[in-house]
Amino acid sequence: MKFSPLVDELIQSLKCLPGVGPKSAQRMAFQLLERDRKAGSKLADSLGKAMSEVGHCQSCRTFTEETYCPICVSTKRGHSSVICVVETPADVLAIEAGGHFSGRYFVLLGHLSPLDGVGPDELGLALLETHLASGEVTELILATNPTVEGDATAHYIADMAKNHELAVSRIAHGVPVGGELEYVDSTTLALSFNGRLPI
Amino acid sequence: MKFSPLVDELIQSLKCLPGVGPKSAQRMAFQLLERDRKAGSKLADSLGKAMSEVGHCQSCRTFTEETYCPICVSTKRGHSSVICVVETPADVLAIEAGGHFSGRYFVLLGHLSPLDGVGPDELGLALLETHLASGEVTELILATNPTVEGDATAHYIADMAKNHELAVSRIAHGVPVGGELEYVDSTTLALSFNGRLPI
Repeated sequence: MKFSPLVDELIQSLKCLPGVGPKSAQRMAFQLLERDRKAGSKLADSLGKAMSEVGHCQSCRTFTEETYCPICVSTKRGHSSVICVVETPADVLAIEAGGHFSGRYFVLLGHLSPLDGVGPDELGLALLETHLASGEVTELILATNPTVEGDATAHYIADMAKNHELAVSRIAHGVPVGGELEYVDSTTLALSFNGRLPI
Repeated sequence: MKFSPLVDELIQSLKCLPGVGPKSAQRMAFQLLERDRKAGSKLADSLGKAMSEVGHCQSCRTFTEETYCPICVSTKRGHSSVICVVETPADVLAIEAGGHFSGRYFVLLGHLSPLDGVGPDELGLALLETHLASGEVTELILATNPTVEGDATAHYIADMAKNHELAVSRIAHGVPVGGELEYVDSTTLALSFNGRLPI
């Protein structure tokens, strides 16, 4: 059985959200229709606006509807000499949540993946190169994910940075705080031994 | 750290969806912004339209943007002499998925719950009464949920229907098909004994 066209269309559209299947989509549609039309309309508005207006920061490529994002605009951080390279805007948020990093970011919006047609151009590495060439940058911290693609991307960028005089580092991989050695995989353990620091 | 205002607003708005917390909302927002703006805009459109245009069927109270829903408009079913009373439009969908019921529905959009201010008026029982008084109805099947409130609602409606000459029945409660006796709770088991049928 089908509902009325508008309700069907809403249920179909909700399935574009990650982790939402037919059953959850139906539940979401009914919940909004039955109990919270105001919040539903607000979601429709902000979704429409975000989809059409949010673009990328001209300096670090994270999401923003302005030309530059709040971090790049900030007088304290916008011209910081330390750039942290991450894969996604969500990574920026994760690092900012810690509050220990006060430099600026460069968001690749992906990682090198030749089979998917993602090369240096798609990652905006030309823009990163202009940042490095400006002479303002003294350190580049590579915080791509510790996956095969993330590591490959980090190595590619490290090679690229060799032409400029600056320190290049990769974030440490090892046993997470609160983790138990017993349950940590062997590759991570090996990395934590390789990356050991004098105490 | 905050994102740009539009992205923040989108993440906040997404939290109105059931089962979506801050982390999922963020994931959904980034997924749509990064990979599927077209689907996101479509969702915004259909959400906006549904929230403003979808109302309730004048005859059975289910969701529809027309005056009457497809079932009530149907010549075969719209004037059926059997009415099935359910709590929500999702229940209509669940029964229709089985395809074994060919009467029409009456959707309460809730159950009696005096503490939450839900009385007979909120459940549209006056409208149901006019259906019963029309003389077209010969059977009323009460398919409210087998909860305390659902049972109370069913009893209230059964009392109401006593003034009219028609058969009133409650759907059977018992062991679900494919279920194992061992894992069925004792109340359900007791109900399945009480409701036993000659074979």
